[in-house]
Amino acid sequence: MTKSEFTVEPWRVRELGLHPGNLAQSESIFALSNGHIGVRGNYDESTPNGLLGTYLNSFYEERPLPYAEAGYGYPEEGQTIVNVTDGKIIRLLVDDQPLDMRYGVVRHQERSLDLREGTLHRDVIWETTAGAQVRIRSTRMVSFTQRAILAIRYTVEAINQPVRIVMQSEMVANERLSMKSKDPRVAAALKDPLRPEEYSNSNNRSLLIHRTRRSKLRVAVACDHVIHADGDFHTNTYVQPDWTRTTVGTELEPGDTVGLTKFVAYGWSSQRTLPALRDQVDAALSAVLHTGWDNLVAEQRAYLDEFWDGADVEVDGDPVIQQAVRFGLWHVLQAGARAEGRAIPAKGLTGPGYDGHCFWDSEMYVLPVLTATAPQAARDAIGWRLSIAGMARERAQTLKLKGVAFPWRTIRGQECSAYWPAGTAAFHVNAAIAVSAARYVFWTLDEEFDREIALPLLVETARLWADLGYHGDDGRFHIDGVTGPDEYSAIVDDNTYTNLMAARNLRYAAEAAERWPKAAKELKVGEAELADWWSAAQTMAVPYDSERDVHMQDADFTQHRMWDFEETAKDGGYPLLLHYPYVEIYPRQVVKQADLILAMHWCGDEFTQEQKARAFEYYEAVTCRDSSLSACTQAVIAAEVGQVALAHDYATEAALMDLRDLESNTGDGVHIASLAGGWIALVAGFGGMRDHHGELSFAPALPDGITRLAFAIRWQGCKVRVEITHDHTRYLLEDGPDAHVTIKHYNRRFTLHSGKPAAKATKPPKPLTPRPTQPVGRAPIRAGSGT
Amino acid sequence: MTKSEFTVEPWRVRELGLHPGNLAQSESIFALSNGHIGVRGNYDESTPNGLLGTYLNSFYEERPLPYAEAGYGYPEEGQTIVNVTDGKIIRLLVDDQPLDMRYGVVRHQERSLDLREGTLHRDVIWETTAGAQVRIRSTRMVSFTQRAILAIRYTVEAINQPVRIVMQSEMVANERLSMKSKDPRVAAALKDPLRPEEYSNSNNRSLLIHRTRRSKLRVAVACDHVIHADGDFHTNTYVQPDWTRTTVGTELEPGDTVGLTKFVAYGWSSQRTLPALRDQVDAALSAVLHTGWDNLVAEQRAYLDEFWDGADVEVDGDPVIQQAVRFGLWHVLQAGARAEGRAIPAKGLTGPGYDGHCFWDSEMYVLPVLTATAPQAARDAIGWRLSIAGMARERAQTLKLKGVAFPWRTIRGQECSAYWPAGTAAFHVNAAIAVSAARYVFWTLDEEFDREIALPLLVETARLWADLGYHGDDGRFHIDGVTGPDEYSAIVDDNTYTNLMAARNLRYAAEAAERWPKAAKELKVGEAELADWWSAAQTMAVPYDSERDVHMQDADFTQHRMWDFEETAKDGGYPLLLHYPYVEIYPRQVVKQADLILAMHWCGDEFTQEQKARAFEYYEAVTCRDSSLSACTQAVIAAEVGQVALAHDYATEAALMDLRDLESNTGDGVHIASLAGGWIALVAGFGGMRDHHGELSFAPALPDGITRLAFAIRWQGCKVRVEITHDHTRYLLEDGPDAHVTIKHYNRRFTLHSGKPAAKATKPPKPLTPRPTQPVGRAPIRAGSGT
Repeated sequence: MTKSEFTVEPWRVRELGLHPGNLAQSESIFALSNGHIGVRGNYDESTPNGLLGTYLNSFYEERPLPYAEAGYGYPEEGQTIVNVTDGKIIRLLVDDQPLDMRYGVVRHQERSLDLREGTLHRDVIWETTAGAQVRIRSTRMVSFTQRAILAIRYTVEAINQPVRIVMQSEMVANERLSMKSKDPRVAAALKDPLRPEEYSNSNNRSLLIHRTRRSKLRVAVACDHVIHADGDFHTNTYVQPDWTRTTVGTELEPGDTVGLTKFVAYGWSSQRTLPALRDQVDAALSAVLHTGWDNLVAEQRAYLDEFWDGADVEVDGDPVIQQAVRFGLWHVLQAGARAEGRAIPAKGLTGPGYDGHCFWDSEMYVLPVLTATAPQAARDAIGWRLSIAGMARERAQTLKLKGVAFPWRTIRGQECSAYWPAGTAAFHVNAAIAVSAARYVFWTLDEEFDREIALPLLVETARLWADLGYHGDDGRFHIDGVTGPDEYSAIVDDNTYTNLMAARNLRYAAEAAERWPKAAKELKVGEAELADWWSAAQTMAVPYDSERDVHMQDADFTQHRMWDFEETAKDGGYPLLLHYPYVEIYPRQVVKQADLILAMHWCGDEFTQEQKARAFEYYEAVTCRDSSLSACTQAVIAAEVGQVALAHDYATEAALMDLRDLESNTGDGVHIASLAGGWIALVAGFGGMRDHHGELSFAPALPDGITRLAFAIRWQGCKVRVEITHDHTRYLLEDGPDAHVTIKHYNRRFTLHSGKPAAKATKPPKPLTPRPTQPVGRAPIRAGSGT
Repeated sequence: MTKSEFTVEPWRVRELGLHPGNLAQSESIFALSNGHIGVRGNYDESTPNGLLGTYLNSFYEERPLPYAEAGYGYPEEGQTIVNVTDGKIIRLLVDDQPLDMRYGVVRHQERSLDLREGTLHRDVIWETTAGAQVRIRSTRMVSFTQRAILAIRYTVEAINQPVRIVMQSEMVANERLSMKSKDPRVAAALKDPLRPEEYSNSNNRSLLIHRTRRSKLRVAVACDHVIHADGDFHTNTYVQPDWTRTTVGTELEPGDTVGLTKFVAYGWSSQRTLPALRDQVDAALSAVLHTGWDNLVAEQRAYLDEFWDGADVEVDGDPVIQQAVRFGLWHVLQAGARAEGRAIPAKGLTGPGYDGHCFWDSEMYVLPVLTATAPQAARDAIGWRLSIAGMARERAQTLKLKGVAFPWRTIRGQECSAYWPAGTAAFHVNAAIAVSAARYVFWTLDEEFDREIALPLLVETARLWADLGYHGDDGRFHIDGVTGPDEYSAIVDDNTYTNLMAARNLRYAAEAAERWPKAAKELKVGEAELADWWSAAQTMAVPYDSERDVHMQDADFTQHRMWDFEETAKDGGYPLLLHYPYVEIYPRQVVKQADLILAMHWCGDEFTQEQKARAFEYYEAVTCRDSSLSACTQAVIAAEVGQVALAHDYATEAALMDLRDLESNTGDGVHIASLAGGWIALVAGFGGMRDHHGELSFAPALPDGITRLAFAIRWQGCKVRVEITHDHTRYLLEDGPDAHVTIKHYNRRFTLHSGKPAAKATKPPKPLTPRPTQPVGRAPIRAGSGT
C-alpha cells in the first residue's frame, strides 16, 4: 500500500480494506491511551501484527548500557519501556477456522478512530474457507474517566449460514516480539521481562500479577466479561502464570449475534504490595462493571466534548490539515491526559520508539499545547519534573555542577543517555523545563503551582546555568561546550537557543524568587545569587556574524564550511546521521532541525523582524530537516516573516508526519511532539500567537489555501476564541461574566471583555525576502498534496 | 615498598630484596623483548606474580566493541593483545617444598637488568621451612640476533645440606589472568583465547600449537633443554593440549649444582599452515642449540655494543637521569629492534596496557629516537604503516574522505577506537606518520625508501588534509572539528599543532612528488593537486590571540573559561578524566599534555623565540600533565626558552616515568614514548637538536645539575658525536674518511668534517620570562630528587 491510506474526514481517521504492509504504522495511528495505559491498534485477534504493544506509563525494565571506552559520569543503567500483559486479545473460531485476516476471504474491513467519541471501531465481514460469512464488530477504548480501564465490545453476527462460534478472550504476558537489540545482553534483559507472581480466576474474572526482573516493578492486570447472546452459550475460564483465557462458545443462526464486553484493569507499583495491587485492579473492575459499557462510552464522549470545546482548531479550505490537527490534538491529549505525575514520552504510549523515553520536546512542543488546551495535564507533567529533581540534583553533582541537571532521556528520572555529546551536553532541557513551568503560571495564574512547583524548578535550574556559564572578558555571560537542539552540531560555545532560554530561565527564577521571598529563602536564595542571575540574564552572549549580518546558531557556526548538499542528494545520504560520521557532520554548516529558528520562535522578542527574516533565509538553506521536530517551527517563523505559502507547506508536513509516515518510523509509535507541532504551526504560525513574558499576542497571517482558521485556548481561567479570515480576525472571551483580558493584535494592545467579541483587520506584514530555498531535495511537502 | 626501589647505577637496573607490593611494576621494568617476542619479568616459578605476560607483536584476539548508542562509522571489532603460551616457567621443588617467595625464608634476592649484556639476572638464596638452603641463579634473555628465541639459564646449588631437587620446565597456554573487563562479552572473548591445535614432544623438546578463536591467528611454541648437572639426574617430558612439562630430578650435596638451559622458539602466522609453523619453530630451536648459550650471550652483547656506540647518552652530574636515559633507550630498542613490519605499541611488548595498541606517539616520540639511533627499526615501523594503507584508505572512505585515515589505535591496522571524539577526530596521527617518513629521509638520504615508502604515505595523507580542510573567507586554510594531542579538548577548529603538522605533511608530499615525478604520476598526483597542497600548506591557519598576545591551541582555546585548579587540587581530582565529565573538561582552559608546545618543538621554525617564551609561560599555567607524553616536550621547550632548571625537572620526570612509576600504571607495561622522551628531553632539550626540513641544528643549554652531556646520533650514514659542557660544545663526525655534514650551532651553519672535531662556545640564550608556574600541585618532580 502507499502510505496515505487513511481517509480524509474532519473527525475520523479511517482505514478501509487490508494493508498488510502497513500494520505497524496503523497500529501506532490507532493506538489508544489515556496517558496511563497505552494499547497499540493491534487486531483483536492479535495476529498478524506489526508489533504488539501494551504499555503503562513509567513501567520499564533496566538494562545495562555498554561502553567500549567508558568515561567518568557515563550512566551505567538504561531504562526501556516494557510490553506488559496484553489484555486486549479476543480470538474467534468460526466453525473450525480461526479468524485471521490472511486466511479465508475478507469481504470487508474498516477500522475507524472516532476523535469525538474517543473509540476505535472495527467492522469486518469475513468468509471462512468453507464459505461461512460472519460480521465482526469491535469497539475499543481506553477510558479517560476511569484511568485503569481498557474496554472492548466485541460482537459476531452470522450472515449466510449457521455457524459454531467460539470467542477466546485472553490476557498474555511476555509476548514474543521481534528482536530489537543487537546487543545480546540488552536482548536478554528484555526477553521475558515479567516474572509471574500470581494468577487466579473467579468465574470469568481473571488476574495476572508479574514483576520485572531488574527494575522490580509489579504489574497487576485483571479482566472480566459481560456476555451478550441471542441464544445459549457456554463459558469457561482458564488461567496460567503467563496467560488467561475466557472462552465463550455458542451456535448462531444467520442474523443472530453473540458478543462480549471485556473490561481490563491495569495497576502497577514499585512499592505497593501484591495484595494491594490485586485489590486495586479488582476494585477498578467492579467500578467499571457498575458503570457499564454504555455509560463508560458516554463518559468518554463528555470528557472529549469538554476538551474539544476549549481546544478545537477549525481549518477551512484545507481538509487534510483539518483532520491532521485534530488527530494531533487527540494524540497529545492521549499522551498527557491521565499521566498524573509521570513523564510524557516522545512516542506517548503508542510504541516502543526511543525506548519509551521522555526528552526535552515534551516541554518545548507538547506542553505549550496542553497548557493552552488541557492545563491540568501540563501541570501534572511539570509536577513530574519536580518529583525527579532529587535525581537531577545527584546528576548535577556527578557533573560537578550546582543545581539540577535534568536527564536528556529517561523514563523514571535517571539519565539514560549513553552518548554524552548529544545527551549530557544538551543542558537546554533544563531551561525547557523551567520555562514550561513559568509559562504555566502565565497561562493559569496558579499561585500555588507558582510557589510550590515553578519556584523550586526555576531556582534549581537557574543555579545550573549560573554555574555552567561565566562572564567573559567581553563582559558577556557565556556558556561553552553545550549541544543545542540541532543534533548535527555538538559541544559548541554560546548556542544562541541555549543562551536565550537560559537567560529566560534565570530571569524567571529571579522574578519568582522576588514574588515568593519566603519560599525563596527556604530554598536558600540570597541577594547575591539573585544579582548573579539578573546579571547573567542581562549580559547573555548572543553570537552575531556581522560580516554576514546574521545571527549565529553558536559562536562558530557561520565560520564553518558549508555542507555539500548536492553531493548528499546524489548519494541519497539522508538522514545524514545514518550515512556520515559525526566527525564530518559536526564541523559543517548543516542543521538537522530548527535551532536558531526555534529561539526566534520562543524567544522572539529578542530579535527584530528584519533579523528574523535574514536568519530564516540563511538557515533555510542549511537545514536538512532530518528531525520531526523541525517543520512546525519552520512553519511558525515562515509565517512570521511573511512566507505564508512556505509556512503552509511546513504546517502540512508537521501535521502529516504520522498520518503519512513521512519519516518511515511511525510504526515505532507516533511523534507526539510533531503532532503537537501541527497545532503550533497553525496557532503560533498562522495565528501568530505568542506569550512572551506572560503577554498574549496574535499576529494572524493566513496562506491562500486556508480561508478561515478558528481556535480556542484556555487563558487565565477563560476560553479565548480566535477566528481568522483573510480580512478579519475576531476575538471572543468566554467564561465569567466580568472577565477581561489584555491581548495584543499585531503589537497593539486591546482589552477583550467576556461575551463582547472584538473584530480587527487581518493585515500580516509583507515578506522582506524572496521565498527562501532549502537544500536540494529537502523542500517540505507541498500543502494540499496530501488530499 | 616505596616506588623507588631500584638501585641507581649507570648500566644496570637492580632490585634488591622482595617487594611483593611492587610485582607488576617490576615485571614491566624487567620485561625483555626484541620487538617480536615480549616476556614480562615474572619470576621463573611464575607465582606469585603481578600479571603474567608473554606477547608476540601483532598477535591479538578480536573482541566486540559494544555501544549503547551506536553511530555511523563506529568500529565494531576491537583488537586486544593476547597473553600467548608462557614458555619461561621453571618451577623448583627442594625436598618436598615448591619454591615460592612467599614461603620458607628468602635470605637473599636480587634481580638485575644488564643494559649492555641485554640479560636479566636473578640471584636467590632460599631456605625451605625445613631449613635446607639453596641458591638459584637465572639469566633470561630475548635474543636480538635470533628473533624467535627466548633463552633461560637456570641453576640451583645446594648450600647447607643435601637436597632432592626437581626442576619443572613448563610451557602453559591460556593462563588465568585477573579479569580486566567489566563487559562479560569482552571477558568471554578473552578467556581461553587460544584453541589447542597440536601438542607433541620428542625427548625434552616439546611443542604447542594454538589458534585464536576469532582472529584465527596461529601460534607455535617449542622448547628444548640442555641439562648441566654435577651428578646423576632423571628427566621426563609430558605434554598436554595446553601445557608441557620437562622435569629434571636429582640430588645435590652442598656445593653441587644442577642447571638447565631452556631455549624457547616462538612463531605465529595468520596465513601459514600448521606444519609450516611447526617446522619453523623447530628449526629455530635447532639453530639456537647449534649456537649454544655462550655464543647467544656473546651475540647479544655484540648487537648491543653496536647499538650503544651510536646511541648512548652520557650525563655527568646526574646519575639518576644517566641511568634512566639508558634504561629508556633500552626499552625503545626492545620495542622496535626486530618488529620488522609490525607496529610499535605504546607499551611495547611489556604489558597489556592500552590493549596492546599502537598510537600516534610511536611516530612522534619513539621514531625520532630510533631514526637517530637505530634507523633500520624506524624504517620497519614506517613500512608497517604503508602496509596498512589499504585499511586506512577504506577507513577514509567510510569517513567520506579522500586519501587515507590511519587508525587512532590499532594492533593490526583496523581502527579500534570506540570513542570517536578522541579517536577518529585525532586526524593528526596521519601527519605524524607522514612527517616521520619525511624525517627518515632527511636522516638517511635513503632514496629507495623515499620513493617506495615515503612518497605514497605522504601523498595519501596529503589527500586527506586537502579534503578535510578548506579555504575560508579569510583566505586561510582551515581544518575544523578535529582533536589535537591534548585530550582535554576535542572537536576543535584549527588546532595549531594539527594544522602545522598538516602543512608540513602537504609540503613534504609536494616536494616528494616533485622529486619523484614518475612515481608520483603512478599515484595519480597531478599539477592541480600539487598546487592545492602548496596552497593549503602556505595559507594554513594558525590561530593567534592578539588580545593576550599568545598563540592559541585552537581557534577558541583562550576564549574559554579557566579550569579551577585550586578546587581540583583540594579534591584530589587528578587525573581529571577520572574525576570530571568531558562536558566539564572540554570547554575549559585546561591542557592534559603538550599540544601547542609540541607544535613549538616539532614545527619550531614557525614561531619566534619570543612567541615560544610567551606561549610556554601561558600554557604552563594551564597544563596539568595528566599524560606521560607531556613532560619531555615541556623539557624541550623549557630548555629552548632558557628555563633550563625547569627543563631539568621535566627531563627527570620524563625519564623516571616508569622507574618511579609516576603514574601508578607501569604495572600494565612501560611507557615507551615517555622513555623515548627521556632521550628527547636531553638531546632535543639540552642539546637543542632540531631537524627542521632536513637541516641538523643544535642549541646547547645545560642546567646547573648536569656538568657534561654527550651523545651520538646516526645522521645520513655517519655518526655525529656531540659533547656539551657549560663552556664548550664539541662536535665529532665518525665513519667515512671524507664525510662531512653541515650543522647549525645556535643558528650559525658550519661544516663538520670526518675525524676533525669542532669546538664551539656553549652560549644559551637568556630566559625572556620568569620561571613559569604550573597549576597548584602540578609542578614536575625536582631534578635530583630521585637519588
